[in-house]
Amino acid sequence: MDAAALKAYASQHLEGVCRLMEETLSSDVALLNATNQTVLKGGGKRIRPLLTLLSAGACGKRTPDTDKVAAAAEILHNATLLHDDVVDGAAIRRGKPTVMALLNAPASVLIGDHWLARAMRLILSTASHTLEYTRLFSQTLDDLAQGEILQLQKSERCDTTFADYLRIIHCKTASLFEVSARTGALSADASPEMTDALGAYAHHLGLAFQIKDDILDYKGGDIGKPVGQDLNERKVTMPLLAALEMVGEERQREIRELFAAGGHEEEILAFVLDKGGISKAQEVLESYIEKAIGSLAPLPESEPKSVLVSLARYSSIRTQ
Amino acid sequence: MDAAALKAYASQHLEGVCRLMEETLSSDVALLNATNQTVLKGGGKRIRPLLTLLSAGACGKRTPDTDKVAAAAEILHNATLLHDDVVDGAAIRRGKPTVMALLNAPASVLIGDHWLARAMRLILSTASHTLEYTRLFSQTLDDLAQGEILQLQKSERCDTTFADYLRIIHCKTASLFEVSARTGALSADASPEMTDALGAYAHHLGLAFQIKDDILDYKGGDIGKPVGQDLNERKVTMPLLAALEMVGEERQREIRELFAAGGHEEEILAFVLDKGGISKAQEVLESYIEKAIGSLAPLPESEPKSVLVSLARYSSIRTQ
Repeated sequence: MDAAALKAYASQHLEGVCRLMEETLSSDVALLNATNQTVLKGGGKRIRPLLTLLSAGACGKRTPDTDKVAAAAEILHNATLLHDDVVDGAAIRRGKPTVMALLNAPASVLIGDHWLARAMRLILSTASHTLEYTRLFSQTLDDLAQGEILQLQKSERCDTTFADYLRIIHCKTASLFEVSARTGALSADASPEMTDALGAYAHHLGLAFQIKDDILDYKGGDIGKPVGQDLNERKVTMPLLAALEMVGEERQREIRELFAAGGHEEEILAFVLDKGGISKAQEVLESYIEKAIGSLAPLPESEPKSVLVSLARYSSIRTQ
Repeated sequence: MDAAALKAYASQHLEGVCRLMEETLSSDVALLNATNQTVLKGGGKRIRPLLTLLSAGACGKRTPDTDKVAAAAEILHNATLLHDDVVDGAAIRRGKPTVMALLNAPASVLIGDHWLARAMRLILSTASHTLEYTRLFSQTLDDLAQGEILQLQKSERCDTTFADYLRIIHCKTASLFEVSARTGALSADASPEMTDALGAYAHHLGLAFQIKDDILDYKGGDIGKPVGQDLNERKVTMPLLAALEMVGEERQREIRELFAAGGHEEEILAFVLDKGGISKAQEVLESYIEKAIGSLAPLPESEPKSVLVSLARYSSIRTQ
C-alpha cells in the first residue's frame, strides 16, 4: 500500500467520523461555526482517528462508539494545535493561515477550550467503557500540556538531553497515538492483550512519527513548512542530539552555546548535516517502526492489520 | 454573619480542599510546581469550593467526594482564569502579577491546559456519581469558553444586548457556580429536589456575583483593580446597559458609537453615573439575590443553609 492508497483508504473510511466532528462542533455562536469550518476543511493527515478505526477493525468490529472516540481524538488533537499555535506564535499550519493569523491569539485559546469541552462531551455520549475513555483522554491531555511546557522550559535553557527529548515526544505525540489505538480496541471490546498490543504499536509509531517531523524540519518536505523552524524556536530535536553524540564534550558545549545565543541557524544546520545527524535520526526512527510492527504479532491477520503495517512503513519514508 | 466571619468560616472549612488542590497539581516539571505555588497562594475568594461544601452540608453530610469536587471546581476556575488572562492581556489579577506577566502567554495557556486535565483526573477519582460530575464539569467548561468567545465577538462590534449580557454572565460565572453547588449536593447523595434547589440558588448567586463585579468595575473597590477596565476592554456590562435603557434611541446610538470608537471612557463613565446605571444594576443584582435565597426554601434549616443565606447577602454589599 503506497501513500496514495493509504490516503484513499483513510478518506473512504473516515467520512462518518468527519461528519461526527462537524456535528459535535456546531454552535449557535457565529464566530465558532465559521472557524470550525475553516479548521475542519483544513485537513491534516487524520492519522489519529485512522488509528482508532484500524485498531477497532483489527479487533474484529467497528461500533458507533468507535466513530465517537475517533472523532474525539481528532478534535482533542486540533484543540491542542490551536493552543500550540499561540505558544509558537505560528501564522501558518499545513500551508494555511492559522486561527491565530485569521483572528487572533485570544480566539485561538478560547476555541481550543471549547473544542476540548466538545471532545469530552462526545466521549461522554459513548454507550460502554465511558469512564475508561474519559480516563485515557484526560491523561493524554495532561501529557500534551506537560510535553509542551517541558519543551518551552528546555527551549529557554537549550539543555535538552536525549531523555528529555524522548519524554517530550512521548507527551507531544506518542501519548495521543496510543490513546487513539487503545480506545479503538476498547470500542471493539478487545481483550487486554489485544488492547496492549495496539497501544504498544501506536506508542512506537507516535515516537517515529514525531522524529520524522523533526527530520523534515531539517530537510524540508512537501508541506510548505519552512526549513529550520524548530531551530528558530530553539527546539533541540533528534537530528541535533544525534549529531552532538558524534563529537567531544567541548564541541558539544560550543554548539549548545551557539544555539542558546541564537542567530547561528545556518552554522548549526551545517553541523547537523556534516555529522550525519539526519541519517542517525532516521536509523532511530526505523528501529521504532520495527518495534511498532513487531507489537502487532498477537493480532490475527486481517485487512486492518495489514493497513497498520503499511501505515508504519509509510511513516518511515513520508516526505510531508 | 459579616464578611470577616464568612472569611473565617471559609478558611476553617476549606483547609482540606486547599491541601487536595496542592496534591492534585504537584508535578515533577519544575516550572509547573513553581507556578502552582504562586497561584495557589494568590488566593481569591474560593467561593466555588465553599458553595460545594455548603451545598453538601445543607444536604446533611460532607464526604471525601465533596472535597474532591470542591477542589476540582476551584482548579477548573483557576485554569480558565489563566486562559482569560491571555485573552485580556491581563498583567494584574487580585492585585498580584499574573502568570502572563511573571512568565509569558504560552506558559499561561499550557499551565491552564495542564490544570484542566488535573481537575478532570480529580473528578475521575471520585467513588460515586463520577460520570454525572464529569458531564457537569464538561458542560461548564464549554459554557466558560463560549461565554468568553461571545464576549470577545461582542466587544468587537459593541452591540451587546441585555439578552447577550445575560447569556455571557450565565456562561462566565453562573454556570460554574451552579455546577459547584450541584456536585456538592450529589456528593451528599441529595434528592433531585434538593440538588435542583441548590443549583437554582447558585445560578442566581452567580448572576448577582458577576453583576457586582461589573458594578465594582465602574465604582472601584478595595481589590486594587483599576476602575474602568471593562470599558477599556470594550465590554458592555449591566451599568451601561441599564443607563442606555434610560435614554432614547438616538442617544443610545451616540453612546454606542463613542464606545466603539474608543478613547471616550470618561464620557461614558459620566453618562452611566448621570443616568443612574449603577443603582439600576444594583437593583437587578438584589432581585437575583432574593431569588437565590428564595430557592433555598425546600432545604431544612441548618448551619450550612444559614451560611448560604449570609453569603448571598454579603454578595450584594461586598466592596471587593
